[in-house]
Amino acid sequence: MTDRLQKQLDFLVEVDKMKQVLRATLVMDKSRYENDAEHSWHFALMTMLLYEYAGHRDDVNLFRVLKMALVHDLIEVYAGDTPAYDVAGNETKADREKEAADRLFALLPEDQGAEVRALWEEFDAMETPDSRYASAIDRLQPFIANAMTDGHSWQTMQVTKAQVYQRMDMVRHGAPELWSYVEGVVDDHIKKGNLLP
Amino acid sequence: MTDRLQKQLDFLVEVDKMKQVLRATLVMDKSRYENDAEHSWHFALMTMLLYEYAGHRDDVNLFRVLKMALVHDLIEVYAGDTPAYDVAGNETKADREKEAADRLFALLPEDQGAEVRALWEEFDAMETPDSRYASAIDRLQPFIANAMTDGHSWQTMQVTKAQVYQRMDMVRHGAPELWSYVEGVVDDHIKKGNLLP
Repeated sequence: MTDRLQKQLDFLVEVDKMKQVLRATLVMDKSRYENDAEHSWHFALMTMLLYEYAGHRDDVNLFRVLKMALVHDLIEVYAGDTPAYDVAGNETKADREKEAADRLFALLPEDQGAEVRALWEEFDAMETPDSRYASAIDRLQPFIANAMTDGHSWQTMQVTKAQVYQRMDMVRHGAPELWSYVEGVVDDHIKKGNLLP
Repeated sequence: MTDRLQKQLDFLVEVDKMKQVLRATLVMDKSRYENDAEHSWHFALMTMLLYEYAGHRDDVNLFRVLKMALVHDLIEVYAGDTPAYDVAGNETKADREKEAADRLFALLPEDQGAEVRALWEEFDAMETPDSRYASAIDRLQPFIANAMTDGHSWQTMQVTKAQVYQRMDMVRHGAPELWSYVEGVVDDHIKKGNLLP
């Protein structure tokens, strides 16, 4: 076995830990928390099936978006998941994630480590058409999970409409035709008492 | 909301059940069985990072392979997982999966249902360069999981070397440079008593 293949396999084994990184959202039958591997798959599938709603779609390359979706949370195998509405966690998030990225991507052959890191950094910066669409759908995936589980993480974290709107703002840019769906769900869950007005 | 978007969202909610379809392989820390959503993510990531080993690589379109990986097990939300070494299950697999596909893909708008079904059928037939590479990696993902968990499903199902070679044969065609890795793992696990010679 070449040194290169050994590194690739070691990396692919290490990121199996994604299956143990729990998120703040439930799977839709409410039996347990969702993990990062499941979220990444569901998010990637959503980018594929909702691509027609991408903002500036002519500039959005779905192939690159799929790759971003598959790698966007890998650094959480070391940094852990930081829930959207966890204020303290979000203050240390950038530092923790950078440190995790340095450690994790170094496991790969240099060219691939650089490629995956660049995809993750582009995703995180939300400045390109690809990453803006990807970010919109990354936010939509747990939003739909919350909508289907009586607003589980909204209730648990006492979330307000303003917080959800702030969190979901990228949908207005990355997938603007889906914004009225977001508004409808928010209003519905305020009525149901799952979300603070 | 348009009827089209409603269908897309209903489908994306329905396939959340992938997170409940358990497979015969363990996650690598051995704490529990892996599910189809986790497998699909890991498999898709592997196709991306091992693409350089694809057989007939100039004819393999990684974008299509990624889409195949994301949808290849969707029908298992109705048909269930059929473990590779489950002889009786494999006799009824094709019928159960076709019925599941008819039901599941009908949830999507017609054009998307047809697109996803075509990807799944192509994957399943293993005749094109894309699907042969995808199939090789689909088999490699649980193979690596078995290698990392003392051959859990090999031990549980009393699997022989010949059965593993038969199951993994697509690696010789879809990712031939990875075949010697397969041979090495098989020999190692026979020595360890995890696999029957």
